[in-house]
Amino acid sequence: MKFKCEKNKLQEAISIAQKSVTGKSSMPILQGLLIIAEENQITIIGSDIDLSIETKLDAEVIEIGKIVVDSKLFGDIIRKLPNKEIEITSIDNNSIKLICEKSQFTLVHMNADDFPSLPSINDDVNFSIEQKILKNMIKSTIFAIAQDESRPILTGILFEVKDKKINLVALDGFRLAFRSENIENDNFINAVIPGKTLNEVVKILQDEGEVNITFTSNHILINLEKTKIISRLLEGEFIKYTSIIPEEYNLRVTVKREELLNCIERASLVGKDGNTSLIKFDIEDDYMIITSNSQLGNVREEINIILQGEHLEIAFNSKYLIDLLKIIDEEEIYMEFSSNVTPCLVKSTKNNNYTYLILPVRLLNS
Amino acid sequence: MKFKCEKNKLQEAISIAQKSVTGKSSMPILQGLLIIAEENQITIIGSDIDLSIETKLDAEVIEIGKIVVDSKLFGDIIRKLPNKEIEITSIDNNSIKLICEKSQFTLVHMNADDFPSLPSINDDVNFSIEQKILKNMIKSTIFAIAQDESRPILTGILFEVKDKKINLVALDGFRLAFRSENIENDNFINAVIPGKTLNEVVKILQDEGEVNITFTSNHILINLEKTKIISRLLEGEFIKYTSIIPEEYNLRVTVKREELLNCIERASLVGKDGNTSLIKFDIEDDYMIITSNSQLGNVREEINIILQGEHLEIAFNSKYLIDLLKIIDEEEIYMEFSSNVTPCLVKSTKNNNYTYLILPVRLLNS
Repeated sequence: MKFKCEKNKLQEAISIAQKSVTGKSSMPILQGLLIIAEENQITIIGSDIDLSIETKLDAEVIEIGKIVVDSKLFGDIIRKLPNKEIEITSIDNNSIKLICEKSQFTLVHMNADDFPSLPSINDDVNFSIEQKILKNMIKSTIFAIAQDESRPILTGILFEVKDKKINLVALDGFRLAFRSENIENDNFINAVIPGKTLNEVVKILQDEGEVNITFTSNHILINLEKTKIISRLLEGEFIKYTSIIPEEYNLRVTVKREELLNCIERASLVGKDGNTSLIKFDIEDDYMIITSNSQLGNVREEINIILQGEHLEIAFNSKYLIDLLKIIDEEEIYMEFSSNVTPCLVKSTKNNNYTYLILPVRLLNS
Repeated sequence: MKFKCEKNKLQEAISIAQKSVTGKSSMPILQGLLIIAEENQITIIGSDIDLSIETKLDAEVIEIGKIVVDSKLFGDIIRKLPNKEIEITSIDNNSIKLICEKSQFTLVHMNADDFPSLPSINDDVNFSIEQKILKNMIKSTIFAIAQDESRPILTGILFEVKDKKINLVALDGFRLAFRSENIENDNFINAVIPGKTLNEVVKILQDEGEVNITFTSNHILINLEKTKIISRLLEGEFIKYTSIIPEEYNLRVTVKREELLNCIERASLVGKDGNTSLIKFDIEDDYMIITSNSQLGNVREEINIILQGEHLEIAFNSKYLIDLLKIIDEEEIYMEFSSNVTPCLVKSTKNNNYTYLILPVRLLNS
């Protein structure tokens, strides 16, 4: 194998493929990146079996071939080289020579035949979506996935395509995040993608261009121009989320998002009890009182609202409200309540693109 | 106690005083900040006994008094408040009320009488220096202090004033950092200041204005306009560093600093063996070869130099060279050698403001 390529392009490709190398695998070969030199093109592949990322770059390939190099060492070396041409040559069965200006490295490599092959993806059902929209949808749901593995299906995000809409749903037993966008597609898709995969996907998605997504029964293939991301799906059935989201409400509060976030953040400082912080809302006619107390002291915040419906006293774990209020990028929001023991919904005042649901904390006197 | 002040000024003062609150003390009162309200002025003091920081801000004081508040909670609350006027009032013996716009907090406080009093500093010997110069001198020596406590005196930096010069010296048994500046002062000072203190001092020093420094036999007082930093000195005698620094050399290399740093950083990636990385220099007539090898592979870097003197082969722990090459902000440096078992000096090509010394690693064949 022998090829020449630009340092910057190689570095960029490595940093994409590295996103699938967790460094935690018991198989040493998975600490490596597979480098394949074909005509005019280099392919770099990283994998931790569950998630594989393949990316391509232009190169002057003098002799085709393939090797596996240590992901961290190879990436660190390329990053530290000057932004000039790099030449990489196999010198024997288990080492390569790397030359860039006056730097010369000889590096041991692993055998490309030991690298696991990528799952084959038949073009089952696929659709396209703007990268920016998908990135935004993932970011605004992923915070609500379950952090513990007791119900593995909840550590992923449901991708649902139906009725010309794409819906992403995450829930962890205390809260639910729902994001929806229109899409030109007649397929029906219902698949749960690991949160770990999507955490890396958001880092790779750009603000421009489209992405093509293909589903098989076991895998998702996310196809960008030069990069393919393949992940296994989570097995099992996702919770029927539509039955959890109430359709009616007794009162609706219109409130400024950032002001509410600031009030809750301050209130939660005093209410802290370990990692959770309980805050209470007193919803009155045109204002809402937020209170919290602990042995450290107590706090009272007041915020102007528009109320449709009855008064209500209701309490929450402040973290769940803070998480979702930080994610929304609109000035005003609706909060919909039915009682102080039923879920609160947070929605857009403009469209149906998102719904967040959080469970209240039962008050001692309720 | 009752006062009103601007949120931004209060936040700034808290963040300065907090730098002495380590949160590791077994005395709960030291998790607190002492707040003293006097005529038109608030003083905020933090202390971990070894290091105390006192800072002042203007305020409308309606009733004088003093309290101790939890440093973290109080700081977090002030930071999250809108940038408006804050009113703080004692409401009984152990709590205060804090009001800012529509936010109201009641906070438990501790007793100001339990707060340790600051060491009294008599105006023994003192001098002034530009804040920017002192900050730069500390930054360019502190990396060389000893990290382990086996010889406590080496965890500090020697401040030496003599012959109209101020010298800062740090050393850890493998390397030494020396920085010197001219100063208009006839005192003789020789004191060792804890590295922990100076780490906080560099965060407080600004790029403009002077700082006045006073030494007593046990303490240093660093006096800025509104802020006083008082630290105990380390006890014991510092190593006679002048006897360690060789005055003569057999060869002197002139080399571009950044290019050398890049070569060494790349070479150290391959040479890594645990946390240390051994690199070898072959100094020839007008170039220097840097090599390193391990089971991962090997590397050869070549860099142009100007050599006065003989050829030499010498080896180093790359970390020590990387540390000092990152700190120097000059384009070219001198490296002076006598043999491959004696220290290497790194100096300015322009003045005598700095000298770095590192010990070589003995090569197997030397």
